[in-house]
Amino acid sequence: MTELADRSASDLLADLRSGTLAAATLASACLDRIAAREPEVEAWAYLDRERVLAEASDRDAQHANGAALGALHGLPVGVKDIIDTADMPTENGTVIHKGRRPTADAVLVARLRRTGAVVMGKTVTSELAVYKAGPTRNPHDPSRSPGGSSSGSAAAVAAGMVPLALATQTNGSTIRPAAFCGIVGYKPSLGLLPRTGILHQSSILDQPGLMARTVADVALLADALMGADPADEMTFDPSWSLVEAAATPLRTPRLAFVRSPYWAQADATTRAALEQLATTLGLETVDLPDAFADAAEVQKTLMTAGIAEAFGPDYDRAGEQLSPVVAGIVEAGRKLSALDFVSAMSQRDRLREIFARRYAGYDAIVTPAALGIAPKRDGSTGNPIMATTWTLLGAPALTLPLLRGEDDMPLGVQLVGNLRDDARLLGAAAWLEARGVH
Amino acid sequence: MTELADRSASDLLADLRSGTLAAATLASACLDRIAAREPEVEAWAYLDRERVLAEASDRDAQHANGAALGALHGLPVGVKDIIDTADMPTENGTVIHKGRRPTADAVLVARLRRTGAVVMGKTVTSELAVYKAGPTRNPHDPSRSPGGSSSGSAAAVAAGMVPLALATQTNGSTIRPAAFCGIVGYKPSLGLLPRTGILHQSSILDQPGLMARTVADVALLADALMGADPADEMTFDPSWSLVEAAATPLRTPRLAFVRSPYWAQADATTRAALEQLATTLGLETVDLPDAFADAAEVQKTLMTAGIAEAFGPDYDRAGEQLSPVVAGIVEAGRKLSALDFVSAMSQRDRLREIFARRYAGYDAIVTPAALGIAPKRDGSTGNPIMATTWTLLGAPALTLPLLRGEDDMPLGVQLVGNLRDDARLLGAAAWLEARGVH
Repeated sequence: MTELADRSASDLLADLRSGTLAAATLASACLDRIAAREPEVEAWAYLDRERVLAEASDRDAQHANGAALGALHGLPVGVKDIIDTADMPTENGTVIHKGRRPTADAVLVARLRRTGAVVMGKTVTSELAVYKAGPTRNPHDPSRSPGGSSSGSAAAVAAGMVPLALATQTNGSTIRPAAFCGIVGYKPSLGLLPRTGILHQSSILDQPGLMARTVADVALLADALMGADPADEMTFDPSWSLVEAAATPLRTPRLAFVRSPYWAQADATTRAALEQLATTLGLETVDLPDAFADAAEVQKTLMTAGIAEAFGPDYDRAGEQLSPVVAGIVEAGRKLSALDFVSAMSQRDRLREIFARRYAGYDAIVTPAALGIAPKRDGSTGNPIMATTWTLLGAPALTLPLLRGEDDMPLGVQLVGNLRDDARLLGAAAWLEARGVH
Repeated sequence: MTELADRSASDLLADLRSGTLAAATLASACLDRIAAREPEVEAWAYLDRERVLAEASDRDAQHANGAALGALHGLPVGVKDIIDTADMPTENGTVIHKGRRPTADAVLVARLRRTGAVVMGKTVTSELAVYKAGPTRNPHDPSRSPGGSSSGSAAAVAAGMVPLALATQTNGSTIRPAAFCGIVGYKPSLGLLPRTGILHQSSILDQPGLMARTVADVALLADALMGADPADEMTFDPSWSLVEAAATPLRTPRLAFVRSPYWAQADATTRAALEQLATTLGLETVDLPDAFADAAEVQKTLMTAGIAEAFGPDYDRAGEQLSPVVAGIVEAGRKLSALDFVSAMSQRDRLREIFARRYAGYDAIVTPAALGIAPKRDGSTGNPIMATTWTLLGAPALTLPLLRGEDDMPLGVQLVGNLRDDARLLGAAAWLEARGVH
């Protein structure tokens, strides 16, 4: 029988709602798993066992009192440590913010609480959600990186410490760690999830992400958290339900195989595995036009300027406590011109338009989630390039742990959908998840 | 009896729908008014009498055939000459774009056609919608400026040449000319109206505007044109109808009197008139915090960089054909750093937040629309400063021709609403329009 800590959130939710499973029992099972695996994995930046059990007991009391139950009633959720929590520290993966305690919950955390989730604790992030790795190890092989910057969230979900976790992505920080850790990572359309109360790098690029072990579970989490926030003007109210979309897989999804201009950087095993998948599924190759060869450079300009603005005060105050990589980005960003930045915005808008036209007829495109399996730990977080283009466009992207690479390590298959049409993407993902790759 | 050309769009629409008024008859009346006033006013950049009559006759044929009638059936609408039209030139107010003929309609123009409007022609804009005036004169006094950059649209509506017109605003290009010409100008929340196919200066600042002679009429036009456009990511689908909002004036609107940090620049007559109005209406003064003193500088940074990017190619190719003012902005924009730009974006986001919190309890704020009456013509378009802050925030703004200044020239009263809550603003505006200032 599957252990509690390994069951899917959707499955657990049914038992939590019916009352056959207490939130405290589930929280205890997750805490036990953490106790067992955390010494090796180091996924948590902050975890207070007593606080978690008290919160879970509150949920059980609500159930006992016959109170209306939220959409995530009793489900433990990990929260990346760049997402503000009023009752726990939020240290952004840097000693400079050691002991930082926000006065308010991020909007996503407030929505977690409002829908009955149990906030498990804060998960390890790379330094300021950039490229310098935290202590976390890949649960499949502790000598390997879990990816980043949402390292702890990915590792925690993969290790069964929580069924659900919040992540973010400004370049490849949800898709890459989810792929490396062999879970489902979902980076919704720009604007589906509000950023208010999350460490800021770039208002165009920053996008919350969600992690779970099944498509239905990321859909469950997304439905509970999505929708317009007056403080984040990019946000919108969708007209669809992702739980419904995930529950009704497309019958014959129209999928295009996209190698992208960055294909040659992927390792041979990954390229072969993806091409085999495309053949098995009978996919048409519909590659991106040449203009997309600039996508990484455009993303870099926007992110570099954003980081220079966002972390400039840290650099000026305590630069010697920043890693050379973050300090270098701040310095580079200070040299960019406004025209570099505005031209990058316009280029990005043009790419968005081309993308929207080219793939409108497809439910999703199929492309690698990363250049290969999780690399050996070396202080960095792996290459985000296979996620960069979709982050830049704000297109919805999801990685499925469908393939295996060297050493039987997971290899992600990334599906990318049309802008603001996440329901079609989830319908396609549910189809592919159910089909498998046999 | 009111002449056809002077009647309100809402009023005319009832007769057009019932069939007691033919679209061709109305178009002819407007063309006659144009023939009479255009030599003095010079509101039109392009007008083809035969094309207009043919389009109006098509509308009448649809009516005769019992076809479903659009929300703007048979209503003549002027279109600012920076908004693309596939069947007419769009020359952006510069000789550099002489003879430019877009291949597609702007989304707003496509929506005008789809809802049965008669596109009257293209109205004069200042050079590239910046500060160098076109030939248009103020219909109330030809020695005076109509304001800009939507000069022709404002003058045409004021002179009864059309009941409705499309404008735009990146700084004060809808509110200022509407105020100077004594009509209703409405600049909706950023994102209510798509910008696709409109001359681009800044994706944060550019906002379409609407002009008419009554609040109900701008509401009619807005309802027909509003809503999400996949090609413009700022757009959203509102949950309200502005026609309904305008038809049900608020009973006791909560209004705050806001002088703004730029109040001292307004002339004495304007300050006295607005203070008198505030007293008459019993309004509480709830001024903007000091942080707003930077709003004009922030807007300038964003617009200057945007103009440098948008018109840089024109500058490089044909700089000698640009006015010194536009050339100077391109040069200044090229000197800005990315950090200047990104910091301005962040400052603007902070001001948005402060604004949203401070005025959430008010249906609208009341503030001057301009520094005074229309100035004498001098090649410029008047000072936009009283509109700048609200454009920067993306807040909905509307000017009502309620007051009179020197020489009995119109003086606008500007109402500004909460972000994305245009319905409340229109309800407040309908109340104030009905009440008058007696």
